[in-house]
Amino acid sequence: MIKRFLEDTDDTELNKFVKDFPGNESYHQPEAKTRVSRPQVSEPRPQAPELYEDDLEFRTPSWPQPSDSQQYCSASAPLSPSARPRSPWGKLDPYDSSEDDKEYVGFATLPNQVHRKSVKKGFDFTLMVAGESGLGKSTLVNSLFLTDLYRDRKLLSAEERIMQTVEITKHAVDIEEKGVRLRLTIVDTPGFGDAVNNTECWKPVAEYIDQQFEQYFRDESGLNRKNIQDNRVHCCLYFISPFGHGLRPLDVEFMKALHQRVNIVPILAKADTLTPLEVERKKRKIREEIELFGIKVYQFPDCDSDEDEDFKLQDQALKESIPFAVIGSNTVVEARGRRVRGRLYPWGIVEVENPGHCDFVKLRTMLVRTHMQDLKDVTRETHYENYRAQCIQSMTRLVVKERNRKPRAQSKQVSGSP
Amino acid sequence: MIKRFLEDTDDTELNKFVKDFPGNESYHQPEAKTRVSRPQVSEPRPQAPELYEDDLEFRTPSWPQPSDSQQYCSASAPLSPSARPRSPWGKLDPYDSSEDDKEYVGFATLPNQVHRKSVKKGFDFTLMVAGESGLGKSTLVNSLFLTDLYRDRKLLSAEERIMQTVEITKHAVDIEEKGVRLRLTIVDTPGFGDAVNNTECWKPVAEYIDQQFEQYFRDESGLNRKNIQDNRVHCCLYFISPFGHGLRPLDVEFMKALHQRVNIVPILAKADTLTPLEVERKKRKIREEIELFGIKVYQFPDCDSDEDEDFKLQDQALKESIPFAVIGSNTVVEARGRRVRGRLYPWGIVEVENPGHCDFVKLRTMLVRTHMQDLKDVTRETHYENYRAQCIQSMTRLVVKERNRKPRAQSKQVSGSP
Repeated sequence: MIKRFLEDTDDTELNKFVKDFPGNESYHQPEAKTRVSRPQVSEPRPQAPELYEDDLEFRTPSWPQPSDSQQYCSASAPLSPSARPRSPWGKLDPYDSSEDDKEYVGFATLPNQVHRKSVKKGFDFTLMVAGESGLGKSTLVNSLFLTDLYRDRKLLSAEERIMQTVEITKHAVDIEEKGVRLRLTIVDTPGFGDAVNNTECWKPVAEYIDQQFEQYFRDESGLNRKNIQDNRVHCCLYFISPFGHGLRPLDVEFMKALHQRVNIVPILAKADTLTPLEVERKKRKIREEIELFGIKVYQFPDCDSDEDEDFKLQDQALKESIPFAVIGSNTVVEARGRRVRGRLYPWGIVEVENPGHCDFVKLRTMLVRTHMQDLKDVTRETHYENYRAQCIQSMTRLVVKERNRKPRAQSKQVSGSP
Repeated sequence: MIKRFLEDTDDTELNKFVKDFPGNESYHQPEAKTRVSRPQVSEPRPQAPELYEDDLEFRTPSWPQPSDSQQYCSASAPLSPSARPRSPWGKLDPYDSSEDDKEYVGFATLPNQVHRKSVKKGFDFTLMVAGESGLGKSTLVNSLFLTDLYRDRKLLSAEERIMQTVEITKHAVDIEEKGVRLRLTIVDTPGFGDAVNNTECWKPVAEYIDQQFEQYFRDESGLNRKNIQDNRVHCCLYFISPFGHGLRPLDVEFMKALHQRVNIVPILAKADTLTPLEVERKKRKIREEIELFGIKVYQFPDCDSDEDEDFKLQDQALKESIPFAVIGSNTVVEARGRRVRGRLYPWGIVEVENPGHCDFVKLRTMLVRTHMQDLKDVTRETHYENYRAQCIQSMTRLVVKERNRKPRAQSKQVSGSP
């Protein structure tokens, strides 16, 4: 559409004007402070004055090259580059290039306006970690976010754990990087899978997620929607034991109960107990079982066809890494002359951030650097919308039931009167 | 919070380890393909194995400078810059700098994730133009968006216009710049102010805006909220005649009726009939009257205190330009050796995009390049929310009334039965 108007227009009409009118001296126009270099011509007045703007052919200006054959003297050009207002977008300005002189409307700054607003507003993210205790959930979270979220955590004794029911705890922390603020909330599920009988131990977790949806539904339907606190869970890292032969029944039960409610990202925990070959086999087994049991874990969005090849390869590698085999560590060791987060074994050093040792970096890149916003969007657009639709449907059924009950009660009352 | 963990940690403990254990030769670790340069030490096992991760002091790695006094040989480093996965953010990557080696979580890419998503999704914007005919509304819109939105427009004769009632027309066009897609909808109000008696001629306009809100409210409250078409009006350019002594009663009536429903941006139309001094006086008069009549035109958001000075000055200039004095033109003329959008008078050339001639560029910058997203946000967060709240309140009143009516009707029926 726009292309049509960027095409050079012919100026036969204009030349005709110029030829027909006398007077070629440039003269000074006092008010506008601009030296006018055109011959003075009076615009021909069309018959119907209110029509004339639209009757004229629609043409777009196109700047001539300096080698343009026509020569006019020009003074005090108010549109010189130095006088141009400075762009508020700095290096993000899509128009700040050598093509600057082309005529643009300027709406390509819209993504930058969105960018700017999002920075001003700040971000929030709620991450749930689930899986039996001892699989390094807290350590991994601390490693991922370089923060100590569990300083006051009290671990339970073995006796306490036998009786324990699943409880849900929340830790929130405000962190900032490069001017971007993030309110991170970690939802933990201590006690999950710890009891002798773990039947339906996914239930409190599912209920917690639904409660957050319900609260949001209430708030969103209310009168005042400013400052709604959004506690919806955006992602659940589900920790799978490295000792199981693939998925355990509890894992299957949990993921099947939760996969319609939350983005599940499966984690193969404590992968330093497995050789690379064992990791590969176990991953394949788990992927097969996820498929077999019809579990819908978080799906990475498809690459656009216009993405570059590097990005596509990276994306492919990410998809093939499920479940992410991770090793966590809160301690710093020295390896290859650098101090790194790792674990010191008599047989060598396990480096958490070494891609040859585990998928920690891949997981962090996905969770934080590339897909955090998508996890939020899928939560909002899919999981929450599903919850909301179910909610409305059951509310509608209730109302219909109520309505059907009422007339009967009423007619009874009427017929029963003397 | 994060700062605490970026502080260098002391390695007294680690040095103690190193001193206590023998063996200084580096050896090859086959599986991880990493040459380990640390002496082999076995990690001391704490008493309670399930506690050990959290008992250890939490420390963050810090990379030593090349001049570090300790020398270890290092081979085939898997984390070398060339092996680092390429950032999908390209030049927008906030981590793509010399500070790269510092440890970051990575969530500063969140605004870029939002940016990327917004580009993929595309944008929409609905602009309304209002004001009596002949003030150059269509010409200005065409000039602003470099497109011809009114090709099939049929202008009415003087006779037709006497009888005419205000109608609302919509023109939509899809435009693209630098890969950013925008669906632009222009809502026009032909007939506004054209009749002999213009009493309540703002009503159809207000009703149109409310209808769009109502439709959105319905859609938003429905079961399936995917693909909701959002027709809410984001901005209304209100054209004020340059011949009035300030605001006319019709202008005041219109703006007062609409200012709670839509972002009004007042325009001083056809400013080429006014000298710079007259423009300044008329603008001041109009601003005073806007204040006097309690009209709330669109308020530019306040600058953040952390914005740079240039930006603040630009913002200040913008606020002082209200109402924007504009001159529109669909024709191209030659001025100062360049072909520009302008108007050829016997006394000189009026250049639309010359900041010394009118506020066209200022208006376009505001409307498109800097404040388009804010206009949408204010529409969504303020005008729509106000409409929705009123809607819910009157619905609630209706339900209460209905409830009060029913028992009475019912009791009547009961007492009335034989």
